[in-house]
Amino acid sequence: MSFAVNLQDRIAKVNSRLCVGIDPDLTKIPVEIFDKSAEKGFGGPALAGRMLTEFSTRIIDAVAAHAACVKPNVAFFERYGTAGLASYYGVCSYAREQGLMVIADMKRGDIGSTAKAYAEGIFGPVSVPVKTGGFEDQELLAIDAVTLSPYLGADTLEPLIEYALKAEKGMFILCKTSNPGSGDLQDLTIEGEALYMRVAKMIQGLIDKHDPQDSQTFSSIGAVVGATYPEQLGEIRGVLKNSFFLIPGFGAQGGTAKDLDGAFYPCGNGAIINSSRGVIFAGLKDEYKGVDFFEAAADAALKAKEAINTAVPQA
Amino acid sequence: MSFAVNLQDRIAKVNSRLCVGIDPDLTKIPVEIFDKSAEKGFGGPALAGRMLTEFSTRIIDAVAAHAACVKPNVAFFERYGTAGLASYYGVCSYAREQGLMVIADMKRGDIGSTAKAYAEGIFGPVSVPVKTGGFEDQELLAIDAVTLSPYLGADTLEPLIEYALKAEKGMFILCKTSNPGSGDLQDLTIEGEALYMRVAKMIQGLIDKHDPQDSQTFSSIGAVVGATYPEQLGEIRGVLKNSFFLIPGFGAQGGTAKDLDGAFYPCGNGAIINSSRGVIFAGLKDEYKGVDFFEAAADAALKAKEAINTAVPQA
Repeated sequence: MSFAVNLQDRIAKVNSRLCVGIDPDLTKIPVEIFDKSAEKGFGGPALAGRMLTEFSTRIIDAVAAHAACVKPNVAFFERYGTAGLASYYGVCSYAREQGLMVIADMKRGDIGSTAKAYAEGIFGPVSVPVKTGGFEDQELLAIDAVTLSPYLGADTLEPLIEYALKAEKGMFILCKTSNPGSGDLQDLTIEGEALYMRVAKMIQGLIDKHDPQDSQTFSSIGAVVGATYPEQLGEIRGVLKNSFFLIPGFGAQGGTAKDLDGAFYPCGNGAIINSSRGVIFAGLKDEYKGVDFFEAAADAALKAKEAINTAVPQA
Repeated sequence: MSFAVNLQDRIAKVNSRLCVGIDPDLTKIPVEIFDKSAEKGFGGPALAGRMLTEFSTRIIDAVAAHAACVKPNVAFFERYGTAGLASYYGVCSYAREQGLMVIADMKRGDIGSTAKAYAEGIFGPVSVPVKTGGFEDQELLAIDAVTLSPYLGADTLEPLIEYALKAEKGMFILCKTSNPGSGDLQDLTIEGEALYMRVAKMIQGLIDKHDPQDSQTFSSIGAVVGATYPEQLGEIRGVLKNSFFLIPGFGAQGGTAKDLDGAFYPCGNGAIINSSRGVIFAGLKDEYKGVDFFEAAADAALKAKEAINTAVPQA
């Protein structure tokens, strides 16, 4: 089954379009996690790795019933080197074991042979050497989809698409992002049309070529569309009719459910909405004072799920 | 001393503007490296890590006298997971110990708090937990500069610039790349001007704001400019007067010394020219039949250095 079909099944099962971004900031996590992680093993990056794993797996336990997906952000793990990356691999596996779909937030993009190397590492299989000589295929990273950057052009995305579809995995290509400076390049006008619309058309071209759909089905090639610019959602949907949108910016970045007009089809599919800090650090907010840190995350995830569902049009 | 000053010193010391891209393909490396690496330890990803380290350090030994920089490409390491990343950290350190400057080829780019996490991991320091409680700053990755992607806008580059300049390190921001599909977005015309020129102006704006220069000095904020499009080099130079260009596409991708017109100032600075497969896999070419694999890499690096130097204008 394709990534897009698996995602629809997961959405239906939990009646949730929420994606919880796992961006762990170790200076903000509960002291009990620090102390428990410090009991065993070395300090330094190794301790950081244990803290990342303990915190992230407890967040996953808290949100698994309320979220369709989690999106662990590799930057927050790989800054601690190999111990951080080891945690990342473990956290992705753990999330899948709990039934969540995993979107690896990596924003990769590179040319030719490098794109193929990224594709092997992200989607697998990767050809690893055997002690007695020769190579064998292995799967190392347990994820369902990845975020990708389009600036280098369609040919740099194709090796990733090829590996993804073969492995029944998916991707979300950056189209319009949610940061204040996203307009620097993405809003520039080319013959009356914004650059992000050109990117949307480039993505649709890749769908038509590699993963064509009819009017009732979704592609495994999705797009990142920032919810801080709601009027652009409908414009991009006009081009990318068969794509799931990964919509960041909900919660801490200021997006709200009323900004999601046009994100969903009446079937309830078409988008997943990300909240990172608004869920994983809910326990630091005044409204959750005295509540267990991970119970606060669970409650925030439930409320985000329900708020998002109000934006699904009635069939 | 800034990255730009250190780079000029290194160029003068070896009279070389060559950057050797380390993109190790384990299926192409000499069987002696495979056998030596397989003697000890596990097979699989761990063996891949040992092979990456053995191959890359021997390439570094071979080219250290002829190259200004090496550019280890993280995609070829991280596809093997933590063992690959551990090798990457070791290879970067080893290259610096041999006097080479190290450009981490990562093409990172992300928003807000994620950009800061990447900046910590790449440029350091990263705040790591101490067993007795609290955090301390550590440097984990030994590199001099990194490649970055501009699609998300100037505000996503600023945290990286801030960390880089504080650590006396540098960066090369993708402007015009060397792949066939680079024109899909980069050549689109905005009010009579290509998108890559808008990116060049955005980079110059960041230099003016964070790392201003006079007519005789170089910024530590550079740009990636593909040598397969030589006529565009001069156009970009017209905007980015104080930047070093990292020019890929020399050798295997088809660029030659005559395509480097306008890359260098008469002082001999202004660009470093990358060759990856043309150097590291020179030993597989017919012209090096019977020659030791790493002696072939050394000879190819020497010849590339000399060919590049013919493009430096006479003062």
